[in-house]
Amino acid sequence: MRDVNIIGIGAEKCGVSDENLIDLMAKSSIDAVSAAGNVEIDAIFVGNMASEEFTGKRSISTYLADELGYRGKPAMRIENGPASGSASFMAAFFSVISGFYDSVLVTAGEKMTSVSTEECTEILAKMLHPVEKIHNFTLPTYGALLTRLYMNEGLTRDQLSMVSLKNHRNGAKNPIAHFQKKITIEEINNSPIVVDPLRLYDICPISDGSASVVISSNTQKDGILVAGIGQATDMHAVYQREDLTDLKALKMAFERAKKMAKISIKDIDLMELHDAFTILEICEIENLGLFKREEIAKAYEDGIFEIDGEIPVNTSGGLKARGHPVGGTGIYQIYEIVEQLRGKAGKRQVEDAKTGLCVNFGGFGDNVIVSILKRS
Amino acid sequence: MRDVNIIGIGAEKCGVSDENLIDLMAKSSIDAVSAAGNVEIDAIFVGNMASEEFTGKRSISTYLADELGYRGKPAMRIENGPASGSASFMAAFFSVISGFYDSVLVTAGEKMTSVSTEECTEILAKMLHPVEKIHNFTLPTYGALLTRLYMNEGLTRDQLSMVSLKNHRNGAKNPIAHFQKKITIEEINNSPIVVDPLRLYDICPISDGSASVVISSNTQKDGILVAGIGQATDMHAVYQREDLTDLKALKMAFERAKKMAKISIKDIDLMELHDAFTILEICEIENLGLFKREEIAKAYEDGIFEIDGEIPVNTSGGLKARGHPVGGTGIYQIYEIVEQLRGKAGKRQVEDAKTGLCVNFGGFGDNVIVSILKRS
Repeated sequence: MRDVNIIGIGAEKCGVSDENLIDLMAKSSIDAVSAAGNVEIDAIFVGNMASEEFTGKRSISTYLADELGYRGKPAMRIENGPASGSASFMAAFFSVISGFYDSVLVTAGEKMTSVSTEECTEILAKMLHPVEKIHNFTLPTYGALLTRLYMNEGLTRDQLSMVSLKNHRNGAKNPIAHFQKKITIEEINNSPIVVDPLRLYDICPISDGSASVVISSNTQKDGILVAGIGQATDMHAVYQREDLTDLKALKMAFERAKKMAKISIKDIDLMELHDAFTILEICEIENLGLFKREEIAKAYEDGIFEIDGEIPVNTSGGLKARGHPVGGTGIYQIYEIVEQLRGKAGKRQVEDAKTGLCVNFGGFGDNVIVSILKRS
Repeated sequence: MRDVNIIGIGAEKCGVSDENLIDLMAKSSIDAVSAAGNVEIDAIFVGNMASEEFTGKRSISTYLADELGYRGKPAMRIENGPASGSASFMAAFFSVISGFYDSVLVTAGEKMTSVSTEECTEILAKMLHPVEKIHNFTLPTYGALLTRLYMNEGLTRDQLSMVSLKNHRNGAKNPIAHFQKKITIEEINNSPIVVDPLRLYDICPISDGSASVVISSNTQKDGILVAGIGQATDMHAVYQREDLTDLKALKMAFERAKKMAKISIKDIDLMELHDAFTILEICEIENLGLFKREEIAKAYEDGIFEIDGEIPVNTSGGLKARGHPVGGTGIYQIYEIVEQLRGKAGKRQVEDAKTGLCVNFGGFGDNVIVSILKRS
């Protein structure tokens, strides 16, 4: 296996877009390819969860190739729920480490706002086990249950709100974030209840967006090394899990990525976590082994996860504030880490960031991909 | 890049099944893994076009991993229209040639009969360009147009019917074929018109099915080498193509696969082609450079493409008779070639077959994958 670098990135602003999926994807693709410089793209990998249902259009990898003027080039789409972005990155990564292709474009995005919130929730719920669907479980149902479990053990409303507070504060510094405004603890605590105890500001928005990276065996001066990548699954039926707070797939995926990157958790300078619900950020920090459950609230209070903290988390604003165009999120995470490792993150810049990590969930913790990127 | 072999295969009978998609997939998976013998599966790649729409279920790779007792193992799904099977095979192939994984399971299938024929046609039509969808174009529309182009140049109804005649004759010898009965030229010529000049027997059926392969860096005595694989795209909007009979993506994909396999067309002993419409088999034979357009009808009459002919085509019965569970078809094609190269094809056995080729279309010729397999 040879080294693979990210040599170009591009991303559209997350939010409610007037543009269709292919136009969004074409724009971020062109930005990434331009940034990569004079390199021949051998193939296109597209990450997308549900273009058929959100936009009535399948075969988007072929469509995108054609739109980009890349007619003839190989193109395929990878679907792995909300981890479609990371899965497309992983498939593309395999194709380059193997030597089969030298440089490939990975574009991941979603157009979600073309359907109603109810339809969107229905589409998302198709990732649950059929038995859960029968009982009308949705993703927010599980977000609420997980939050309740932590609250039963003492997590307070104010403590939970620190996640949203931080991520909105970061999003306010991110020009591609869906929400670029700070919010207060009061606003969070008084926002409408969606599924008790989940409030509106505990849940990521429904976003349109597309992000792209060019990965290559080329070494360029600002290339970012893909140091490690790992994937794992867990019990598909969430309700059957012995302990909802035990994110087994995350632990395994992280172990695999860490082993490949030959690093320990202490070497990680910043991370993008999958905070589709605020409680997930807390739960992931715990499962990555960063802090024990009882220490996490204090760590938030101490500013450990802030941009200028010991281990910044979701400097982009995370899914909560940057947005969560489901199939695109994995590449948005990688985009943020690349910006940080290159020292190009502007007001969000983490000082001397050398190694970053992304956690992308494809379902409620049952299919997780962890990537580790390094400044080469 | 290291050599990769197919070391285990499994396939469910194509047809109208009482079983759900996951059960079909689990069965073919278990057969392939059992056949592969004592090998550790590192990851699962799933090929599927539209489980969300046909069955209301997404996240089938995670679901399948769990069902198989492979909880924890990495799993992802690849969607590439009717070439989802081949695309999942290709992504899996990348992961093994690279050394990232050693042995992986590829399972591809579709459950189509859970919706009406009208709904099915609608779902399939989502692979066309949006402008074509507006004008109510469907895949059979293009099948009919292509047929008309050939008929305008002299192809007769009787000549076209030879494709279906042969493929049904072969399907009658294939225990996993959807249709295991011979039909006569008269039956074909008198079957109902679907889209003039396409008749019922010119169109593949709507099938349920799942097929699996285990690919590995292991060398086992009956391992079949993946000698070449190539993919290419073409203009997405079919109506804009200068010449509908010019299958550019097929030509490019074949060139790429051939170059990798270091063989010429003369080295190919048999092929599985993508005969979703009978005319496609004829058009593919022409575009592969096997015969000139004006020679093909005579070649059919001379029995060149029969099991005992010079270059057998669709010994499995093809999409027409074996069936076309869309996302699964690519792996069904590989399954047939592996059976043939191992000398296990029973009544369909091609004498001393050493090298076989598969052509899988992901759309109306705009995304094509060609695989070349060799007896090692």
